[in-house]
Amino acid sequence: MKLHNYFRSSASFRVRIALELKGLGYDYVPVHLVKGEQLQPAFAALSPERLVPVLEDDGRALTQSIAIIEYLDETHPQPPLLPRAAADRARVRALALDIACEIHPLNNLRVLKYLNRELGLSDDAKNDWYRHWVETGLEAVERQLASSPATGPYCHGDLPGLADCVLVPQIFNAERFACRLDHVPTVMKVFDHCMQHPAFMRAQPSNCPDAQA
Amino acid sequence: MKLHNYFRSSASFRVRIALELKGLGYDYVPVHLVKGEQLQPAFAALSPERLVPVLEDDGRALTQSIAIIEYLDETHPQPPLLPRAAADRARVRALALDIACEIHPLNNLRVLKYLNRELGLSDDAKNDWYRHWVETGLEAVERQLASSPATGPYCHGDLPGLADCVLVPQIFNAERFACRLDHVPTVMKVFDHCMQHPAFMRAQPSNCPDAQA
Repeated sequence: MKLHNYFRSSASFRVRIALELKGLGYDYVPVHLVKGEQLQPAFAALSPERLVPVLEDDGRALTQSIAIIEYLDETHPQPPLLPRAAADRARVRALALDIACEIHPLNNLRVLKYLNRELGLSDDAKNDWYRHWVETGLEAVERQLASSPATGPYCHGDLPGLADCVLVPQIFNAERFACRLDHVPTVMKVFDHCMQHPAFMRAQPSNCPDAQA
Repeated sequence: MKLHNYFRSSASFRVRIALELKGLGYDYVPVHLVKGEQLQPAFAALSPERLVPVLEDDGRALTQSIAIIEYLDETHPQPPLLPRAAADRARVRALALDIACEIHPLNNLRVLKYLNRELGLSDDAKNDWYRHWVETGLEAVERQLASSPATGPYCHGDLPGLADCVLVPQIFNAERFACRLDHVPTVMKVFDHCMQHPAFMRAQPSNCPDAQA
């Protein structure tokens, strides 16, 4: 398998965690987003969205981090990244989507560029925007985690899964942009627990070849 | 089953289509987003995210439209909304997420409110924002659909599924905001085909009780 990705892309980070949790080896192919390498023909041929990550497996190029993680879970079922019962699976997927659909899309690179270039926002106004969606979005995740007996040391019970793969990169972003996090203690407890797990440690941005280059 | 939703919410519309495709009856509970009913205590108790839709089933309140559709597909497998092979499932999920993560989050009500209230954007600038993300986002979907032999009359082959449930509401939004659509002919061919199917017709906003009230 080949993972086309960028050390700082949180969607890439999600898939790296999933690959590590499954114990699957892969070739790391860096795509430098700030230099615009995702728009070059070679990469665009793999990704109609011009977005990282792309997982090449078995002659196919797969896109969208959550679709890739579900694929890995279906093709390499052990250890599972989703629980067994349908309602529990729905809970884990909803937690992942609360971040992937409600927080992250508002704060990715092309949106921040639009705020800068098209709307002429100051850096302060741009940072307010960033923090607003992270802080209010994580509040919703906190309410979910704090109110449910299904929450364990991980987002769902005793095993790391899809929701943790999505939560951890979001907290890395939040910390990088100095977002408030003291109002989401359950989220942070889960995050701290994840970061003691070797899979999460190995997958983190600072360990990526393109971060060290 | 009870579906808490709003006629114009495209995430609600996705789930209504899935329920119709599965032939599942449900109680329609309107939540008036423009009046802020999603923030009232009765609804907030069901949805930690304060977002529609919420599906109540078997004593559980399920959130996030795509997680709900996957749940319906697992609990009521016929007719399936995802193909069988893992790589095909990944393709369908990626198409759904290309809309649910890359287009829709930038244009929902709370984001448009922020552009208005916090950033003081003019209506013209707000509409430019809206159209930018719809038009460039659908271009990526067009590239996926037009380039793959897996595309049929529906997003994937001959049967309507998860990706169609997400695509159709996005086109309704695009039309409401007068977005350009002549650059995405394959997308529009799939849309037109879907809208001839009774499930998509029945689920559309104009047929909802709260639209007619």
